[in-house]
Amino acid sequence: LPGQPAELMPMVERHLIPRLRRLTGGTVLLSSTLKLTGTTESEVDAKVRALLALKGETTVGIYAHPGQVDLRITARGKNDREARRRIAGVERRNLTRVGGLFYGADDETLESAVGTLLKRRHQRLAVAESCTGGLIQHRLTDIAGSSDFFLGGVVAYSNSIKQSVLGVKPKTLKKYGAVSPETAQTMAIGVRHLTGSHLGLAVTGIAGPSGATKTKPVGLVYIALAHGRSTSVRKFLFTGSRGTIKWKASQASLNLLRLHLL
Amino acid sequence: LPGQPAELMPMVERHLIPRLRRLTGGTVLLSSTLKLTGTTESEVDAKVRALLALKGETTVGIYAHPGQVDLRITARGKNDREARRRIAGVERRNLTRVGGLFYGADDETLESAVGTLLKRRHQRLAVAESCTGGLIQHRLTDIAGSSDFFLGGVVAYSNSIKQSVLGVKPKTLKKYGAVSPETAQTMAIGVRHLTGSHLGLAVTGIAGPSGATKTKPVGLVYIALAHGRSTSVRKFLFTGSRGTIKWKASQASLNLLRLHLL
Repeated sequence: LPGQPAELMPMVERHLIPRLRRLTGGTVLLSSTLKLTGTTESEVDAKVRALLALKGETTVGIYAHPGQVDLRITARGKNDREARRRIAGVERRNLTRVGGLFYGADDETLESAVGTLLKRRHQRLAVAESCTGGLIQHRLTDIAGSSDFFLGGVVAYSNSIKQSVLGVKPKTLKKYGAVSPETAQTMAIGVRHLTGSHLGLAVTGIAGPSGATKTKPVGLVYIALAHGRSTSVRKFLFTGSRGTIKWKASQASLNLLRLHLL
Repeated sequence: LPGQPAELMPMVERHLIPRLRRLTGGTVLLSSTLKLTGTTESEVDAKVRALLALKGETTVGIYAHPGQVDLRITARGKNDREARRRIAGVERRNLTRVGGLFYGADDETLESAVGTLLKRRHQRLAVAESCTGGLIQHRLTDIAGSSDFFLGGVVAYSNSIKQSVLGVKPKTLKKYGAVSPETAQTMAIGVRHLTGSHLGLAVTGIAGPSGATKTKPVGLVYIALAHGRSTSVRKFLFTGSRGTIKWKASQASLNLLRLHLL
């Protein structure tokens, strides 16, 4: 088979897989992945332990990624229909146990789940990012048609932009610091005001490796959401490299938005 | 070996590789990658054809990626020093042929090359993104210490943000459209003005799959750079999926900046 993915993939799907199916005598093995966020591998493990112990035609595996836990259900059947029916049964049992931790299956992403909810609720979003540096907006605009629910926003990397563009007061920055619940909330309100959006999402934190202080470690992140007449804010402490902290903060931000929309 | 990368990598480096070296009788095989952008595989091929034909202790391979072409030099030697010396010789011959297309080697990224140049020239940057949706700013803030040269910017996804935040006139949008050299230039000037940066970089285009018009196809992108008292703008036509067009536009933007700084 050729190495070029554009040539390889259709050949695998159209020729290799049907041929392998014939060789295996019609037995079908299918998988489906349930994606969870805002949780840990051990928390999910405790919730679905009985299902992880399944043996036989249908099995469940657990896989941890930064800011995400996957439950992969695999079923064997004498044809597609039988395998799919088996997956569906175990999927339902998993879903009732994990509840709102679940955001999407297989190819669904957290950003596409959020996009679908925003469209359904007729809410338009604007984002103000400090430590995530544009990653949240990049992820949202990876969705085709994102202009239906995403207006845009600001990457307020320097304090001067937090002040001049988002209206964070020098007093707030001086008293509480750029990484504080107060600054996060003002950024969320500011970006909503600037753009006229229904929702304002803001993130400020320390992605590292430098920038930590005595009271504020690397990985400290505040995420705020301005909506209606109120603003909520949450504190997180993430671990990992600069890139991992940015990613985890973007996951937590999109999840905060998702839970609000739910 | 364990599958967990954090456990696997040190074991490979500290134990597996030294053991394999002993087995191969001290022969060393080293590689180095020269990364080029703003070019095509065929253009690079024509420039370094003689080197791609090398046979023996040192060889050169060419690899194309979206918005990037790699030249990989591999050399064999009886020890590290000999292999490194061979690589260095062939590297020099490649570099004189590809000139300014080269932006970095091995782990260097285009964003880190741009960051180094910005710091060296004491220039601070602000970015206004439409079709790239935050990707350029995300890439720049992946560099530790990027606050030394990057102030922040705007994701002007909607026309209303292009107007209210960046000062693009409704007249300009009506006469030329959001995807035009005029809008790109005004966005670059606007983000510079908004943030007080030395340089203003702006991108506007059609990432697709929808959004094309009779005269403006998917993949049409304008990139503008405001600096000193002037503004330059360039037109690009990229191919590929939405994600690929976003990526290629971010590569071209960072490269425009790199060439300006050089």
